Amino acid sequence: MSSSRPARPAAGGAPCKQVAATREKGDLFLGEIREQPDALLRLLDGSESLERAAGALARRPRPLVRMIGHGSSDNATSFGVYAFGVLAGLTAIRDSISLAVYYGADVDFRDSVVVALSQSGRTPDVVRYVERARARGAATIALTNDPGADLAAVAEHVIPLAAGRERAVAATKTYMNELAALALLAAFAAGHGERARTEVNTLAEALRRSIPSLEQAAAAIAVSFVFVGRMFVIGRGPEFATAREIALKLVETCRLAAEPFTATALTHGPVAALDPLFPVWAIATNDESLETVVTAARRARKAGATLIASGNAAAQLRGAAYRLPAPGAPNPLLAPLLSVVPGQLFAHALALAKGLDPDRPAGLTKVTLAP
Amino acid sequence: MSSSRPARPAAGGAPCKQVAATREKGDLFLGEIREQPDALLRLLDGSESLERAAGALARRPRPLVRMIGHGSSDNATSFGVYAFGVLAGLTAIRDSISLAVYYGADVDFRDSVVVALSQSGRTPDVVRYVERARARGAATIALTNDPGADLAAVAEHVIPLAAGRERAVAATKTYMNELAALALLAAFAAGHGERARTEVNTLAEALRRSIPSLEQAAAAIAVSFVFVGRMFVIGRGPEFATAREIALKLVETCRLAAEPFTATALTHGPVAALDPLFPVWAIATNDESLETVVTAARRARKAGATLIASGNAAAQLRGAAYRLPAPGAPNPLLAPLLSVVPGQLFAHALALAKGLDPDRPAGLTKVTLAP
Repeated sequence: MSSSRPARPAAGGAPCKQVAATREKGDLFLGEIREQPDALLRLLDGSESLERAAGALARRPRPLVRMIGHGSSDNATSFGVYAFGVLAGLTAIRDSISLAVYYGADVDFRDSVVVALSQSGRTPDVVRYVERARARGAATIALTNDPGADLAAVAEHVIPLAAGRERAVAATKTYMNELAALALLAAFAAGHGERARTEVNTLAEALRRSIPSLEQAAAAIAVSFVFVGRMFVIGRGPEFATAREIALKLVETCRLAAEPFTATALTHGPVAALDPLFPVWAIATNDESLETVVTAARRARKAGATLIASGNAAAQLRGAAYRLPAPGAPNPLLAPLLSVVPGQLFAHALALAKGLDPDRPAGLTKVTLAP
Repeated sequence: MSSSRPARPAAGGAPCKQVAATREKGDLFLGEIREQPDALLRLLDGSESLERAAGALARRPRPLVRMIGHGSSDNATSFGVYAFGVLAGLTAIRDSISLAVYYGADVDFRDSVVVALSQSGRTPDVVRYVERARARGAATIALTNDPGADLAAVAEHVIPLAAGRERAVAATKTYMNELAALALLAAFAAGHGERARTEVNTLAEALRRSIPSLEQAAAAIAVSFVFVGRMFVIGRGPEFATAREIALKLVETCRLAAEPFTATALTHGPVAALDPLFPVWAIATNDESLETVVTAARRARKAGATLIASGNAAAQLRGAAYRLPAPGAPNPLLAPLLSVVPGQLFAHALALAKGLDPDRPAGLTKVTLAP
C-alpha cells in the first residue's frame, strides 16, 4: 500500500466529528461518500482476516457460497454472484433468509460456505440464519462493521469491514467495503489475492481523484430532477448490483420511486412505462454486457425517456441528456466500486435540491430490527 | 380430475378467437386471466412429463436446482426457490444468465439440474445458457408453451406448459402454469406428486369460483388509482414472487412505477419514500411470514400510505383503504397461484380506467430477442 499520502483519519474520525456541532443537511452522508477511498485502504490494512476466511472456501471441494443480507448488504450480494463466479469459478447465490429462518426448509448446508453481510452485525434474522446454517454443517463468514456484535459471535470467521462508524442512515462506505471484501475474498480463494489487493489500492486512489469533479457535476445535474417522481436504473452483470444500490439510495434519500432492472429486463417489459417524464439512469461499463446496456438505452430513448448516462462507458450511450461517467477500473470486475459513487453523489445533491435531509430519511433507523 | 363441468376449450381455443374480429381494449388480457383455471387443468392432464422430469432431479444426489427465465418467468423462479425448498428440501436458485452466457464463468454444473422457463421457448440467451449447462454436465429441463421451439430442442426434458397460445403481450396464464409446474416438479421429486396434483385441481376450481366477484371488486377499486404514478407491492416468502409479478403487470399495462419489495426490505429503507400519494399493495397470506407483512403494512400506514390489502389473510391488515382478498389455498405453498389473480384483474381494470390498452403495451413484443 502506498504511504506517500498524508496519514488518513482513523475510522469514524475527524471529518464527521468536526461537522457534528453545526451539522447542515447532508453533511454526514456527503462526508461518508468522500471517506470511501480511506475506508477501502482501511479494509486493505486488515486483509489478513480475508485471507484466513478464504481458506475456509478453499478447504471445501466445490462449495456453494450462500450470501445473505438486507438492504444495501443484499445489493452487495448481487455483485458477489459475479465476484465469486468470474474470479473463482464458484457458484454464489443470494440465498433466501426466510426459507431457512421462517419456513424451516430442510436444506442441506454441508457443502455450503455462508457469507453473511450486516453493517451493524445485529440484524436478527441474519444472525438466526447463520446459527442455523452453522449447526447444519456450513462454514460461516461474517462481514460486519462491528466485530463485537452478535453476528460475529455466531460466525466461525469474522471479516471486519473497517468502514468506520456510519452516521448517515443510508449506507455508502459500508456498501463500498462490502463489494471490495467480496472481491478480495473470491480472489484470495482463487489464489490471486495479492493482485486484487493491488487493484483495490489503485482503485481507491482513482476514486479519490475523481470525487471532487463528480460532486460538482452531480450537483449541476440534480437540479433538473427536483420534480421527477420516478426513475428506472439499469445495469447488467456485476453492475446490476450498482443499479440496485443507486435506486435504493434514491428511494431512501430523495423519496423517488426508483426501480432497478437489468438492461435485458427493461427491454422485456418495463420499457412500456417510459415517457419523457420517466427518466432512465443507465450504467454502461466496458465489459461483456455493454452491448445489452447500449441496446436497452436505445430502446429507452426511443420511448422518449430522458437518459442519464453513467458508468465508465457512458460515452457509448447515444442521445443521453446528462452524463455522469465513472473513472476506468483497474479490473473490469471492480468497476461497480467506482460506478456507484456518481449515484451516491447524485442522491445527495437531489435530496438537498428537494429540501430533504439525506442524513435522516423519514422513519428510518440504522438497524433493521423488524421481523 | 373432475369431469363434471362442461368440456373446457382446447388451448388457444374459442374464447379468444370469438373476440378477435371485434376486439375491445383488454379483451385478450382479460380472456386469458379468466382462462387460468382451464390452463391449470390442461397442465394436470399432461403431468406425465412433470413426473419424468422429476426423475432427473431424484437421480442426482443433492442437486442444485438452477432456474432461469426473463420477465414473468423470472418472477416465477422466485416462487420456485420456496417450492423446491419447502416441498423437497432442495436448494433452488434464480441463476444468473449473464454470468454463464456473457461472462463465461468457469462454473461447475455437474451437480446441477437446470430448469429453464420461457413462454416462447425462443429467448436466445435462455437457449444458450441451457446449451452451455448441458455441455458441462447439468441435467436440463425446459418449461415452455412451445415444445417445438429451440429451447425444447436443446433441453433433455421438456415440460409443455399447456397454457395455450398467449395473445396478450403481458403474460398471465403462462405465469400461472409456471408456478404450478414448479410446485408439481418439486412435489414429484419428493414423492408427493399425486397429492400436489389433487391440490392444484382443487385450487383451479376455487379460482374459477372466485374470478367473477374479483373482477367486479377490482374494477370498483381501480378508478381511485387513475392518477397514481407509483406504488410499492410487498409480500414475503413464496409471495415475493407474487409481489414481483403484480408490480410487473402494473408497470407494463398501466405505465405505473410499481416496485416490489419483500416486507422486510420495505421497512429497512424504502418506507422513507412513502406518503399519502404513494400507495402500497400488501399481500398478506396465512403462512410463516405473515407477521413480517403485518408489521410492514403497519409501518406503511404510519408513513401515511394508502394500503390495498390482498392475499388470503387480507383481513389481518389494519387500516387498509381497499381490500381485494384472495381465496384460501389447499396448501399454503400454493397460495401464490391465487394471490396473483386480484393483481392481474386490478392491472386490467386500471389500464382501462386510464384509457390504455392492456393487450398491447407500448413498444413491446411477445418474445425477448434483444441481447
